[in-house]
Amino acid sequence: MASHPLDPALIERFAAIVGDSHALRDPGDIAGYLIEPRGLWHGSTSLVLRPGSVEEVSRIMRLASETGTPIVPQSGNTGLVGGQMPDASGREVILSLSRLNRIREIDVKSNTATVEAGVILQNLHDAADEVDRLFPLSLASQGSCQIGGNLSSNAGGTGVLAYGNARELCLGVEVVLPTGEVFDDLRKLKKDNTGYDLKNLFVGAEGTLGVITAAVLKLFPKPRGREVAFVGLGSASAALDLFSLAMDRAGASLTAFELMEQRPYDFTLKHAPGVVRPLADDWPWYVLMEISSGRSAEDARGLVEDILSAGLEAGTVGDAVVSASIGQANAFWNFREMLPESQKPEGASIKHDISVPIASIPAFIEQAAKAVEAVSPGARPVCFGHMGDGNLHYNITRPVGADNAVFLALYPPMNHAVHEVVRSLGGSISAEHGIGQLKRDELIATAPPMAIDLMRRVKAAFDPAGIMNPGKVI
Amino acid sequence: MASHPLDPALIERFAAIVGDSHALRDPGDIAGYLIEPRGLWHGSTSLVLRPGSVEEVSRIMRLASETGTPIVPQSGNTGLVGGQMPDASGREVILSLSRLNRIREIDVKSNTATVEAGVILQNLHDAADEVDRLFPLSLASQGSCQIGGNLSSNAGGTGVLAYGNARELCLGVEVVLPTGEVFDDLRKLKKDNTGYDLKNLFVGAEGTLGVITAAVLKLFPKPRGREVAFVGLGSASAALDLFSLAMDRAGASLTAFELMEQRPYDFTLKHAPGVVRPLADDWPWYVLMEISSGRSAEDARGLVEDILSAGLEAGTVGDAVVSASIGQANAFWNFREMLPESQKPEGASIKHDISVPIASIPAFIEQAAKAVEAVSPGARPVCFGHMGDGNLHYNITRPVGADNAVFLALYPPMNHAVHEVVRSLGGSISAEHGIGQLKRDELIATAPPMAIDLMRRVKAAFDPAGIMNPGKVI
Repeated sequence: MASHPLDPALIERFAAIVGDSHALRDPGDIAGYLIEPRGLWHGSTSLVLRPGSVEEVSRIMRLASETGTPIVPQSGNTGLVGGQMPDASGREVILSLSRLNRIREIDVKSNTATVEAGVILQNLHDAADEVDRLFPLSLASQGSCQIGGNLSSNAGGTGVLAYGNARELCLGVEVVLPTGEVFDDLRKLKKDNTGYDLKNLFVGAEGTLGVITAAVLKLFPKPRGREVAFVGLGSASAALDLFSLAMDRAGASLTAFELMEQRPYDFTLKHAPGVVRPLADDWPWYVLMEISSGRSAEDARGLVEDILSAGLEAGTVGDAVVSASIGQANAFWNFREMLPESQKPEGASIKHDISVPIASIPAFIEQAAKAVEAVSPGARPVCFGHMGDGNLHYNITRPVGADNAVFLALYPPMNHAVHEVVRSLGGSISAEHGIGQLKRDELIATAPPMAIDLMRRVKAAFDPAGIMNPGKVI
Repeated sequence: MASHPLDPALIERFAAIVGDSHALRDPGDIAGYLIEPRGLWHGSTSLVLRPGSVEEVSRIMRLASETGTPIVPQSGNTGLVGGQMPDASGREVILSLSRLNRIREIDVKSNTATVEAGVILQNLHDAADEVDRLFPLSLASQGSCQIGGNLSSNAGGTGVLAYGNARELCLGVEVVLPTGEVFDDLRKLKKDNTGYDLKNLFVGAEGTLGVITAAVLKLFPKPRGREVAFVGLGSASAALDLFSLAMDRAGASLTAFELMEQRPYDFTLKHAPGVVRPLADDWPWYVLMEISSGRSAEDARGLVEDILSAGLEAGTVGDAVVSASIGQANAFWNFREMLPESQKPEGASIKHDISVPIASIPAFIEQAAKAVEAVSPGARPVCFGHMGDGNLHYNITRPVGADNAVFLALYPPMNHAVHEVVRSLGGSISAEHGIGQLKRDELIATAPPMAIDLMRRVKAAFDPAGIMNPGKVI
C-alpha cells in the first residue's frame, strides 16, 4: 500500500525543513508516537517531524498554513485525554517537540528558568536542584512528560496546593502561531499589566491555538525541612476539618493534602509490591499530609506535630504517624503513588478527574456513591485525590466478579451520572487532565453555551484555517 | 446649549431601563464621574447609568449594541491611567457599577467570597475579617476603589508578593458581554481544565471586552502574627540580597518587601505630618519588610529576627528596627504610604510604574538614573516600590528651583528614556496600573507587533462593534 493521504511531494517539503533523519516516515519509527498511556486513542499518521529549532517549527507551520495541513503537536506523549494523538485519517502530521530540549537559562536571583518545550520535567527538577531551587510541578509521569505538554494541558499534580498549577508557574511563553509567526513573550515578570493576558490563552489550550516552544517558569527556594504524616480519619468531613486546620496553621507550608478512601488503601496494601501498612488500625479515610519549612527540619516537625495534636484534640484525627526518616516519608509518598496502579488487579475501572468547591467534597462523595450504585449496583468507588485543591480522581472499579467488558460498556452512563453530581455542585469535569478528545463532546454538550461560543471565537481568531490540533478541546 | 451628541430619545430608552433617578443627566450630578485622581483626563458625557442588577446591565448592553452606543464601565473611579474616563465627544455613556454592591456569599470552608463589581474593597476586607479570613488585595485607594475596577485593571498593591495580584485572587467571573448576553462563570474551583482560560481575558481587559458584574475571589486564613521591620541598607544590591535571604527563610510568610531610596524617605520625613523617623542614622536605601505567621505573634517575631540577624552577619543589612507594637507597625506602613504624597511639595513630578526581572533591579536603577539626567540635568529620581515583585514606582521630581510647567513638558521624552531602559531589561512599562488612555499609544508603538495583532484579534472577536470602552488598551 504505497498510497497514503499525505501527498508524497508535500512530505518531501516538510522533510526538507527538518532534515531527512528527523522526518519519520517508517511505520516502525512512527509507532511509539501513536501509543498513549491508556491505550484509548489509536491515531494514524504518515509523518512525524522532529524539528531541532524554533526556526524549524516556524517553517513547518508556515508550510502547514500554506497547504492546509493539520498539525498535532506532541511532546512527552503522556497525556490522558488523547490531546496529543492524530485522528484516524492519516492526513495529520505529528510535530514532536522532543528535540527542543534545552534549558536556556536559570536565573537564580530572579528565581526563573527559561526552558524549551521538549525538556523532560525531571530534568528541570534536577537542574533547579543543582542551584538549590525547587520547581514544584510534580506528576507521576515526570520522568517522561515534557514541559510543552505540561503547559499545554495546564498540568496539576501534587504540588498545586502550595505552588499552583502549570499556568500559575508560568511567567511567559514563546509560541509559534499557525501562520509560522513567532510570538516571543518570554518575560520574567511577576507583574505586567500591558494588555490582554495572551499567555494564559496558550497555556491550557492543548496545542489548538499555537505551538508553545519555550517558557519562563518560576523557581522557588528549596525547603530545608519536609515532614510527611499519614493520618486515619472517621469521615470525609473530618478530613475537610483537618484541611482547614492545617491551612490555618501552616498556610503555604502545607505542601500536600492527599485524600484516600479505605478501598484504594486496601487495594494498595493487597496488590502493590513491597508497600508497608502505614497505620496499625483500619480507618474509613486516610490523608497524606506534607509540611515543608524554609527554616529547618525541626521547624517542619514542630508544625506537623502541632497540627496533628490540635486535630486529635478536636476529634478530627483518628490516628496519625509522622515519618521518622526520609526513607519513611518516601514510602508514604510511594504508597500514595501506587493507588492508581493497585486498582488494576481488581478489574476494569471507569475514571473521573473532577473538582468541586472544597466545602462540597463530602456532599460530592455521598451523592456520587448513590449515583454510581444506580448505574451499576455493586460497583466499587475508588476515591482519592488532591483534596486541598478540591480535585478527586473518582474512579469506579467493577463489581466483584462482574465481567470487565460488560462493566466498561457502562462508561458513558457512569461518566454522565458522576458528572451530573459534579455539575450540580458547581464543579468541573476535568480538573487537571484537560479535554483532548476524551471529553470534547461532553464539554460542548454541557458547558454553558456562552462559554463554548467564546472559546470558538478565540479559536477562529487565532487559527482561522483550523490546522492546529483539530478535533481537540473545542 | 440643549444640543448634545446623544439623541434625547435614546437617552430616554436607556433611562427607562434603570429608572429615572438612576440615569444621571444633570451636569452637576455627572461631574464626580468625570474627575479622576490625577486630573489628567477630562472626559465628557451626557448620561451616567447606575443599574441596580445584572439584568439591567444586560439590557443596557443590548440597547448599546443595537444602537452602536459606546459604553464606558466605571466602578470606584480611582484608576490612574484614564481607563474609566469617556472621551471628549460626549457620545459615550458611563455605566457605573456602584449599585451592584452586594457580597453575595462568603464560603468559609471553601475560602471564597462571591462579590459584585461595585463592592468597595475595604468592605470586602471587613466582611472577610468578620469570619476570621483575609482578603489580601491591599491598595492605597481601598476605601473607595471597587472590585470591578480592581479586576478590570488586574490591581496589584502591597499584597502581591505572597498572595498574587487581582488575577491570581480571582477564581471566576460573571461578565455581561457587549451584546448583553451574560457569561456566568462564577466558579469556586482551584482546578478547572475545561477549555480556554476566558476568565483571565476579562480580568485586566479594562472593560474593553465586557462588563465584569461579579466575581468569586479567594480568601485566606488570617495570620496570627505580623511583624514589620524597617531596614537601612547601603545599596539596592544589598536590598536584593536581603530579599533573597528573606524569601529563602520565610517563603510565603514574607508578605511585603517594599524598597525606598533615601530621597523619598527624606521627602516624607520633611513633608508628611506626624511621621516619626524610623531609624536613627541615614542610609542610601531602606526596606519595609513584613513577616506574617499563621502560628503566632512570637513565631513571626522569631522569623523576622532570624532574617535580620543573618542579614547583619552577611553585611547586607546596615541597621534595622522591628516594630515593638501594632501601633509602630502601622506607623511604619503609614510612612511607606505617605511616600507618593510627600513628593508633591517638592514640585512637579513625572511618574512611572515599571517592572523588571528582580535580578535586574540594581541595573535598572543605575541605568535609569543616567537616562533621567540626560533628559533633565538635576532632575531627582524618587525611587520606591514593591521590590519583591520587581515593580518600582520610579518617579522623577523636577530639579530644585526649576519651573513645573517646563519640567512637565519633558513628560514624553522622560517616559521614553526610562521605558527604553525598562525594555532593554525585558521589563514592563505598566506593572500594575494598566494601559487605559495614558499608555495606549506607547504600547501600540513599542510592544511586539505580534502581541498587538493578537490582542486586536481578541478585541474583534469579543466586541466586533467596538462599543466596549473604546480607545482604551488597544
